[in-house]
Amino acid sequence: MTREWGGALAAHMRRIAALRQVEMLLDWDRETQMPPKGAAQRAEQVAAVAEALHGLETDPRLADWLATAADGAEGTAAVNVAEAARVHARATRVPARLAAEIARAAVEGQTAWAAARAASDFAGFAPGLARIVALKRAEADCLAGDGAPYDALLDDYEPGATAAEVAAVFERLRPGLVGLRERIAGAARRPERLGGRFPKDAQLALAGRIAGVFGYDRAAGRLDLAVHPFSSGTGGDVRITTRIDEADPFQCLHATIHEVGHAVYEQGLDPHLAFQPAGAAASMGVHESQSRLFENHFGRSRAFCDWLAPAMAAGFGRALDPAALHEAVNVVEAGFIRTEADEVHYNLHVMLRFDLERALIDGRLEVPDLEAAWNERFLRDFGSAVPDARSGVLQDVHWSSAAFGYFPTYTLGTMYAAELDAALRREVAVDAALSAGELAPVVAWLNARIHRPGRRLAARRLIAGAIGREPDERALLRYLNAKFGALYGV
Amino acid sequence: MTREWGGALAAHMRRIAALRQVEMLLDWDRETQMPPKGAAQRAEQVAAVAEALHGLETDPRLADWLATAADGAEGTAAVNVAEAARVHARATRVPARLAAEIARAAVEGQTAWAAARAASDFAGFAPGLARIVALKRAEADCLAGDGAPYDALLDDYEPGATAAEVAAVFERLRPGLVGLRERIAGAARRPERLGGRFPKDAQLALAGRIAGVFGYDRAAGRLDLAVHPFSSGTGGDVRITTRIDEADPFQCLHATIHEVGHAVYEQGLDPHLAFQPAGAAASMGVHESQSRLFENHFGRSRAFCDWLAPAMAAGFGRALDPAALHEAVNVVEAGFIRTEADEVHYNLHVMLRFDLERALIDGRLEVPDLEAAWNERFLRDFGSAVPDARSGVLQDVHWSSAAFGYFPTYTLGTMYAAELDAALRREVAVDAALSAGELAPVVAWLNARIHRPGRRLAARRLIAGAIGREPDERALLRYLNAKFGALYGV
Repeated sequence: MTREWGGALAAHMRRIAALRQVEMLLDWDRETQMPPKGAAQRAEQVAAVAEALHGLETDPRLADWLATAADGAEGTAAVNVAEAARVHARATRVPARLAAEIARAAVEGQTAWAAARAASDFAGFAPGLARIVALKRAEADCLAGDGAPYDALLDDYEPGATAAEVAAVFERLRPGLVGLRERIAGAARRPERLGGRFPKDAQLALAGRIAGVFGYDRAAGRLDLAVHPFSSGTGGDVRITTRIDEADPFQCLHATIHEVGHAVYEQGLDPHLAFQPAGAAASMGVHESQSRLFENHFGRSRAFCDWLAPAMAAGFGRALDPAALHEAVNVVEAGFIRTEADEVHYNLHVMLRFDLERALIDGRLEVPDLEAAWNERFLRDFGSAVPDARSGVLQDVHWSSAAFGYFPTYTLGTMYAAELDAALRREVAVDAALSAGELAPVVAWLNARIHRPGRRLAARRLIAGAIGREPDERALLRYLNAKFGALYGV
Repeated sequence: MTREWGGALAAHMRRIAALRQVEMLLDWDRETQMPPKGAAQRAEQVAAVAEALHGLETDPRLADWLATAADGAEGTAAVNVAEAARVHARATRVPARLAAEIARAAVEGQTAWAAARAASDFAGFAPGLARIVALKRAEADCLAGDGAPYDALLDDYEPGATAAEVAAVFERLRPGLVGLRERIAGAARRPERLGGRFPKDAQLALAGRIAGVFGYDRAAGRLDLAVHPFSSGTGGDVRITTRIDEADPFQCLHATIHEVGHAVYEQGLDPHLAFQPAGAAASMGVHESQSRLFENHFGRSRAFCDWLAPAMAAGFGRALDPAALHEAVNVVEAGFIRTEADEVHYNLHVMLRFDLERALIDGRLEVPDLEAAWNERFLRDFGSAVPDARSGVLQDVHWSSAAFGYFPTYTLGTMYAAELDAALRREVAVDAALSAGELAPVVAWLNARIHRPGRRLAARRLIAGAIGREPDERALLRYLNAKFGALYGV
């Protein structure tokens, strides 16, 4: 706690942060613990917390408190005031009833989506999604002022970012990704995945071990199974989930490493800034940089395979060659599912979603036409026809949970991850750490440069400070070309 | 939803009910899922929800809404208005800061208590408990008006009850219990407990089976392990916990039946009254009547042993005689621990706590003297010296969680359970249902008479309606004398 931050404003923001944690817990519980008949009540609970939060964020006393606190505030206190003012301004623009309706619709939407996805039935889901889109358009209109509605939603996940900037990154990235994909498609070398069966309990035990190696503190978290891996919580209580496919252990292991990347960030925030606006994670893009750095740059690296091959041999009773393992976890193959995509295809999946959700929010696309638009675009970008809604427009939970503007943070995160990886390797012996399964020096670097600063720097400035210049997409393309060029001999 | 109940008042009370559910979930999660380092954050989260609830309950618009709604309200709508008015009146008397401080102290108190109990160290825990007592005295003073402070706290758990009434029940009950205990102490027959080892997994599997037999709907709940068995939630999400002692399977099995009694009540509330004040459970005494009815009158009955003996034989691979099993689960033996007490001693444990907590709230006893007062009273009532704080004053979580006025509801519940058991047996073939493990007719009777009415009748009137006269302690004494007289030949 800095000396400048205290009093009624600090106490008020503390309550807001605490209720945000409650929101996350309600979500985690719904995904991992809640019995099926609890869904309707849960929607009411989430709406009630959202209304309470909205009440706090729009409290008319905030304007006075902020004016007083802003006077002469410096450093962290100034960030606290600015961030509190941002939260207050956003909330004040959205009517309480709309905020609560969105919260309730998001919970109901996720339940409806899970059923629709299981049945691969977009038509039945469309009316519910259309309601969510209508609510989000209304929210975006409230928030946007003179700006673009989509930018107002994006700002919630990536403060300060705009669709135009994101689109520019995508445009520069796309030719490089498509070129690499085409070279790989024509390559003579064809690395193969692992075959066989990997028992659930052995996967979970290894996932727990790997989580520890990557710096996850189990006394401040827990590992559970869920349909979709995610990380939830902050500070002393950061929970992660994974999933099991006995035919493919990397569904579990890479999901675990990915979520540990998120979790180590939240566990590594400055505890002295807990419950302060400046103490939160910088943005979803920075968050995703940590998970992608862990999953791809570390988890799918040749060096980590030196550690992983004997660990898998011990866990599954099966000898593995580290070099072959490295090939097996880096197979490039066009598929329908974003979360299963390789590093070369991943950002192409994101671009598709970014364009479609922008069109939905801007009103250039309506929900009844969404499935056709998805399938047409997918065919154009990936060269194959989507076989069913489950493998297409229904694969992701985001839109059903009212998260529009979230997808582009995945690509920003991928870009930041590549920049951080390159910078880290200039200062820390990353490969030696990965081979030995001793990541403490790597985590320490990230703690110092990325985690502990929290929101004291805006996302781009934080990354720029860590790498020593403005970040862009060139490090990502260099990394992909070098890695997959070597693996595929192209 | 009755036609008379709607509009802003109903929506407001719905939010209050939803946040109460969130409070319960935060508690359940703390006991069953939360990692150790999450405790400090959890206290903030609970305090933030408590403050939000206090804000809703003290909302100045409630006075107008209540006045309008009270005009001409009948039936359920009138109960909704009266109950909403009661909640508003209570909350308005307690300052927001005090309410939040109590909520935070209760969470911190439970963490401190668990450590103190493990170390059997009352002195180290006393300052924290003294703070909680001071806060509860302050709350009681705010609530009491011209009445007795302790009654104001009791009213939160058992609306309308007073300490004087409870004391009168205790005074009439005590001679009967003491007399029965003395006859049993002099008896020649000495039933014995089961020996042996009962593996954890088999206990849990049998507990799950028993939960189903007693009417628990697993699609609207879940069964987990916790240090202290409890039930949490309402409607479509009612979770229970149990604990395992491999040397004594009835720690698990009877705890499960007890919690299922609570859970079947909450699952059996009228879904049309969900989130309405009139739709909640009537009181903690009525709640405890359901758990005690299930645990003692059903779970420890001779008839249920006909079902349980073969089920245990199947689960543990060990032949058991139903009559011997009945004796084994009804051994009478003075012990230090309330939750392990037999039916003859149980209410004597409660009386001790009732007198001590009343003295604490009234200011006749201070926390530094509490351990000595406990030990002296225990020696007087039970004839043996408490060996350590863990077996004495530190055994129960209630006071550390700021629950004063809760204990007497256990004895009211025991009294109501005996009344309900007698009334039920006049109309339903209870023993046949228990022998067959087919409790549907029993649960249906309880659903109709006790569960679905919710709060539409006050606790005593609800029980009186179900049994056909005013309840008193005589049914309990008759039941105990008949059951233990036969078992011990006295």
